[in-house]
Amino acid sequence: MRTTTAWQAHGPTTRLRRVTIPRRDLRRDDIAVRVDHCGVCHSDLHAIRAHRGEEPLVPGHEFTGVVTDTGPDVTRFRVGDPVAVGNIVDSCGTCAACAAGQENFCRGFPTLTYGGADRHDGSTTLGGYSREYVLRDRFAHLLPAGLDPAAAAPLMCAGITVWEPLRALGVGPGTRVAVSGLGGLGHLAVKFAAALGAEVSVISRSADRATEAARLGAHDLVVSTDPDRMAAARDRFDVLIDTIPVPHDLGPHLRLVAVDGTLSHLGHLGTVTVETMDLLIGRKKLSSAGSGGLPATAAMLDFCAARGITADVEVLPSARVADALDRLDRNDVRHRFVLDLSDLG
Amino acid sequence: MRTTTAWQAHGPTTRLRRVTIPRRDLRRDDIAVRVDHCGVCHSDLHAIRAHRGEEPLVPGHEFTGVVTDTGPDVTRFRVGDPVAVGNIVDSCGTCAACAAGQENFCRGFPTLTYGGADRHDGSTTLGGYSREYVLRDRFAHLLPAGLDPAAAAPLMCAGITVWEPLRALGVGPGTRVAVSGLGGLGHLAVKFAAALGAEVSVISRSADRATEAARLGAHDLVVSTDPDRMAAARDRFDVLIDTIPVPHDLGPHLRLVAVDGTLSHLGHLGTVTVETMDLLIGRKKLSSAGSGGLPATAAMLDFCAARGITADVEVLPSARVADALDRLDRNDVRHRFVLDLSDLG
Repeated sequence: MRTTTAWQAHGPTTRLRRVTIPRRDLRRDDIAVRVDHCGVCHSDLHAIRAHRGEEPLVPGHEFTGVVTDTGPDVTRFRVGDPVAVGNIVDSCGTCAACAAGQENFCRGFPTLTYGGADRHDGSTTLGGYSREYVLRDRFAHLLPAGLDPAAAAPLMCAGITVWEPLRALGVGPGTRVAVSGLGGLGHLAVKFAAALGAEVSVISRSADRATEAARLGAHDLVVSTDPDRMAAARDRFDVLIDTIPVPHDLGPHLRLVAVDGTLSHLGHLGTVTVETMDLLIGRKKLSSAGSGGLPATAAMLDFCAARGITADVEVLPSARVADALDRLDRNDVRHRFVLDLSDLG
Repeated sequence: MRTTTAWQAHGPTTRLRRVTIPRRDLRRDDIAVRVDHCGVCHSDLHAIRAHRGEEPLVPGHEFTGVVTDTGPDVTRFRVGDPVAVGNIVDSCGTCAACAAGQENFCRGFPTLTYGGADRHDGSTTLGGYSREYVLRDRFAHLLPAGLDPAAAAPLMCAGITVWEPLRALGVGPGTRVAVSGLGGLGHLAVKFAAALGAEVSVISRSADRATEAARLGAHDLVVSTDPDRMAAARDRFDVLIDTIPVPHDLGPHLRLVAVDGTLSHLGHLGTVTVETMDLLIGRKKLSSAGSGGLPATAAMLDFCAARGITADVEVLPSARVADALDRLDRNDVRHRFVLDLSDLG
């Protein structure tokens, strides 16, 4: 058994504790990764808030680092390779979803990077707020040259979560896309949609974000608190990417969707209620998406490398993880916090 | 003012009363239609159940008949022409939806065939359970030769309501379509989808309906009360047309939808609750549809004439309207009741 240093939750507080945790000895197809940078995802906050102490919780599921060790069957990586890891570290590999490269929809449920159950020994997976991670090589990606490792880390959860629905919904030149919320997911949705050639609008509660929206690549901003602007934007968007991470009324967003268009809510909202007349008038569609499969993740990384796209990040030493979480909770982030794990030694 | 004979609701009972009602004198672009056959739609039952007597209620919004009079500006029809009318008899004509031929999504709300407000005088529209109807010529369709007028009447609401989403969702050869519910809408959805070349399955609570499903053109039946059959059909259908007209759990249906597929619920269910994880796992879409625009209705009638498709109907004299409504309420119908209005004189 190996050990490493990590930030672990102890109940529903953002005051994580620095602890020593175990990492498994490498299996034949495992790699060990020195974690250099790990993004702070809204899910981490959810997980910490829900933590009652039953199982150890080390958050973090979008990280980059360097390969430090390889199992004997590993051929894809060598020690020293820069790699990126997202929120899935294993899946059944045999179901129809896995066969189609949609490991995020694995029938047997994918093994999550933290809070999951290891498929071999049943142990609880511990995440990337740590200095080392051990995983199957198949679930790591080579980080393309030219992408800043800190700014690339959020691509692995926030990025792929917006990339897959944009691609699945056929976003490209001529598509009218709206993005609601300019957090980690939203700001990447704007960058991706614009780079894919779409006409992109941001939906925001405040006109103050117009400059920022434009800088990210948006062509327009719709102020959601202005009834006239909202009425003028009715039925306007082929695709509306809703990244607001808390329960909210979907009706106002649905009314902005064009005939035969789709409102895609990203991340897990839990149970939502929908007035079916908001779908019926315009044959509109409500969808949801989260995470991504291995082929789509690889394609996204290639696209990002070719187009020079990474997240806009604020990098903090990992010892300041509580600051990052508390500020994220107040929506005080432009646009993603990334922890620098080098202070863990 | 003209008058005609009709079946009118008096409170929430299916015992409609035979009464004399007014019809407007023809406007310049109006036609008068002798109503010969009117389908009995589940919405009629809803409307009667909700009736508290405030406004006169004459149900009926899918009918066929013969033109008996024309206003001076009418050029599309002549006296004696067989026509078909659906659930919309007017719209604003100027909004983006109307301009796109989606009068059913008119921003100013379409004028419904009954229970609507006439756009000129504000009077409550009275439906097709009557011997005569007066409407703008633009909202009537010439009934193609070869279609039985009684069996064609349900095409005008049930038919177009299933036709539009099937077309909008691109159903054709290779599409895997499931239809839940074999009532007026469902049986036409099976016929249309099969005629469009799709691979069609029926979802039914009972295996007893397998023969009937096959006769309508289905290739398979999934018994919804059999957990093994439901599990085997998981993620199987690109399009699932749900025609169940009462509130129900959408989860079991969503689990049958394929990755990137759509569950389209037809008709107005009111507010529904959805577990977003049922959408997220598979990027599935929930949609709804109802009624249709004028171009799609014309296209559907042409398709039906070319392929010899009409509804399977049981025709009753209109004096037996209560029998039809009561049996519809018990789901004792194969597959649509049609009232023969000739007994009104």
